[in-house]
Amino acid sequence: MNYAEESLKKHYEWKGKIKVITDIPVKTSEDLSLAYTPGVAQPCLEIQKDVNKSYELTRRWNLCAVVTDGTAVLGLGDIGPEAGMPVMEGKCVLFKAFGDVDAFPLCIKSKDVDEIVNTIYLLSGSFGGVNLEDIAAPRCFEIERKLKEKCDIPIFHDDQHGTAIVVLSGLINALKVVGKDKEKVKVVVNGPGSAGIAVSKLLLSYGFKNLTLCNREGIMTENSKDLNWAQKEMLEVTNLDHKTGTLKDALVGADIFLGFSGPNMVTEEMVRSMNKDAIIFACANPTPEIFPDEAKKGGAKVISTGRSDFPNQINNVLVFPGLFRGAFDVRAKDINEEMKMAAAVAIANLISDDEVNENNIIPKAFDPRVKEVVAKAVAEAARRTGVARI
Amino acid sequence: MNYAEESLKKHYEWKGKIKVITDIPVKTSEDLSLAYTPGVAQPCLEIQKDVNKSYELTRRWNLCAVVTDGTAVLGLGDIGPEAGMPVMEGKCVLFKAFGDVDAFPLCIKSKDVDEIVNTIYLLSGSFGGVNLEDIAAPRCFEIERKLKEKCDIPIFHDDQHGTAIVVLSGLINALKVVGKDKEKVKVVVNGPGSAGIAVSKLLLSYGFKNLTLCNREGIMTENSKDLNWAQKEMLEVTNLDHKTGTLKDALVGADIFLGFSGPNMVTEEMVRSMNKDAIIFACANPTPEIFPDEAKKGGAKVISTGRSDFPNQINNVLVFPGLFRGAFDVRAKDINEEMKMAAAVAIANLISDDEVNENNIIPKAFDPRVKEVVAKAVAEAARRTGVARI
Repeated sequence: MNYAEESLKKHYEWKGKIKVITDIPVKTSEDLSLAYTPGVAQPCLEIQKDVNKSYELTRRWNLCAVVTDGTAVLGLGDIGPEAGMPVMEGKCVLFKAFGDVDAFPLCIKSKDVDEIVNTIYLLSGSFGGVNLEDIAAPRCFEIERKLKEKCDIPIFHDDQHGTAIVVLSGLINALKVVGKDKEKVKVVVNGPGSAGIAVSKLLLSYGFKNLTLCNREGIMTENSKDLNWAQKEMLEVTNLDHKTGTLKDALVGADIFLGFSGPNMVTEEMVRSMNKDAIIFACANPTPEIFPDEAKKGGAKVISTGRSDFPNQINNVLVFPGLFRGAFDVRAKDINEEMKMAAAVAIANLISDDEVNENNIIPKAFDPRVKEVVAKAVAEAARRTGVARI
Repeated sequence: MNYAEESLKKHYEWKGKIKVITDIPVKTSEDLSLAYTPGVAQPCLEIQKDVNKSYELTRRWNLCAVVTDGTAVLGLGDIGPEAGMPVMEGKCVLFKAFGDVDAFPLCIKSKDVDEIVNTIYLLSGSFGGVNLEDIAAPRCFEIERKLKEKCDIPIFHDDQHGTAIVVLSGLINALKVVGKDKEKVKVVVNGPGSAGIAVSKLLLSYGFKNLTLCNREGIMTENSKDLNWAQKEMLEVTNLDHKTGTLKDALVGADIFLGFSGPNMVTEEMVRSMNKDAIIFACANPTPEIFPDEAKKGGAKVISTGRSDFPNQINNVLVFPGLFRGAFDVRAKDINEEMKMAAAVAIANLISDDEVNENNIIPKAFDPRVKEVVAKAVAEAARRTGVARI
């Protein structure tokens, strides 16, 4: 199928992928007096007395804003807020279909960090949570950090943390397959953008010790040019033995390659230079850093990509619907590291030790158990860490 | 029925009066490839080339933001944005039920005019139009004016213009009943807030000539204390013979009283001092400026209130759903005076000259013809005045 052509045709038919509906009665004057004036004054007054009642008397308990500035939409780059909308609507569709979350798309006409932060903050009383989407790095880090400080609802940048969680869940099982220890493996992360940095941070939180980040120039060091502040921060916790060189150099003796970069960055020969039973997550989409057959020839044991036509697909849809479902179920104030790790472990645990093998480390996108176990694990972690309201 | 108690109970049951749904297929991996990546890139690129395509490839064509700052919610005053949400959701319900418009509620945590304007402007690419709601005067005038300058989508403050349109439509028929001429009648408007000022402006646009505005102190003049800028502006086009005195003085020899003020401001005696066949629109809610039976005793011929339990109910639901329906049908860039007047005339014309009488000047809220005629008239007026995109 020509997806581009067919999708465009479908979009003209759909005329929008989401709808706002009501299913309360509005047939009689009495109906209106209950749903609107004069009756509606009473729920308003209840919320005025206790703002937490907004989770019981309005849709806030299930409402997630999907927000972009349109600066990093898919692989298309900065195409502007209106042009980003089909992706945001698509995300809302996934939220509903996979997490039963009411998600609403908002595209902000601004590229100024503080203006974007303030806009979202000013709207935060209308939503139970905010999913940031397709905002370019390093702006996305600053926007997220500032919003988390200002808002008392979950703020989640899916390009970062959705990816990080599903990568971690895949790695947990991949390590089982190769029988290696998270504290001992050498990990090379190529592409220090929003996903690469978030993955690195989550792996460190989870207990991985030895990470090396590479950018287009090669291994990132204090002497690398043009690093942004977020990349500089990562130098304090990665590449602790101060290696230098190219990506090729970095891979020599490494156990794990994680790519969030571009097509064909890794060769069979480079894989061969890695330690025995190498793990390759080549997440560049649609063309991975190395195709699975080639990685296999280089001796890799477990190979994962972003594509549905190879085994072990890294797909954020495994994460964000259940994650928000769980956060919403306990009216979480935040989504913290513990909640993210709990989601990753829950996804990994869906594949039992008997079933896990090099072609089966991550559940399928349509596995109906995923939402439920993720939601449950996230809700429990929220309660345990004191960010649940109920 | 105890509406307060029953409505609160219902709101706890409903847990929100709107939902965001999708009805496109999301069952297979192929479905996702069309609704989301990789297919979705193509509609994005089409919109990037021509932003007008956002009306064809996303829900923008039918999407109205219902926005408040929570400063003038119902008669409850400044109860804050979260507490305003049940009203905003209720408004969205009416938009859907009566106009088939997808409306989404947004409560802004700010009371600063420029901050509110900027927030809405930054989101304006996500919507086909904006309905402002329950924002206190005179801030509402400034917010609306600035937004109309900055945005290329319809901006409509319903408390002002919805009321103005339905009042005008009622007056058109009331004048038929009493056989008087809009250019000759003396109109007294009591309560120069958002509704009172908007009504006065629309009547002047429509051809009424003689208006006198009163506030709590009586007739507004150059010497009145504490007038806001919007009220001062009105002095240039109203009270042209520079009357002074109280509301009671203003009503002597007047033909029409329009009240947007408070309960029991007008007495039977005051009505008796008006010209023969007086018209009384006592819109204060729930207790009008004067009850119909009392006004009748004073000699009034046509009496209208905001209540559904008396004849001739002034109800904005006659206006905003069809108005936005019509504006959206032609992808209007603005809602201008001509569109508002066209809506008023269309509503008035639903009652034929044979049917019109003192108890039948305005169609009922549930009259199914209203939306259609208003939408048609508004769309035509938009085309005629060059603000329609299609």
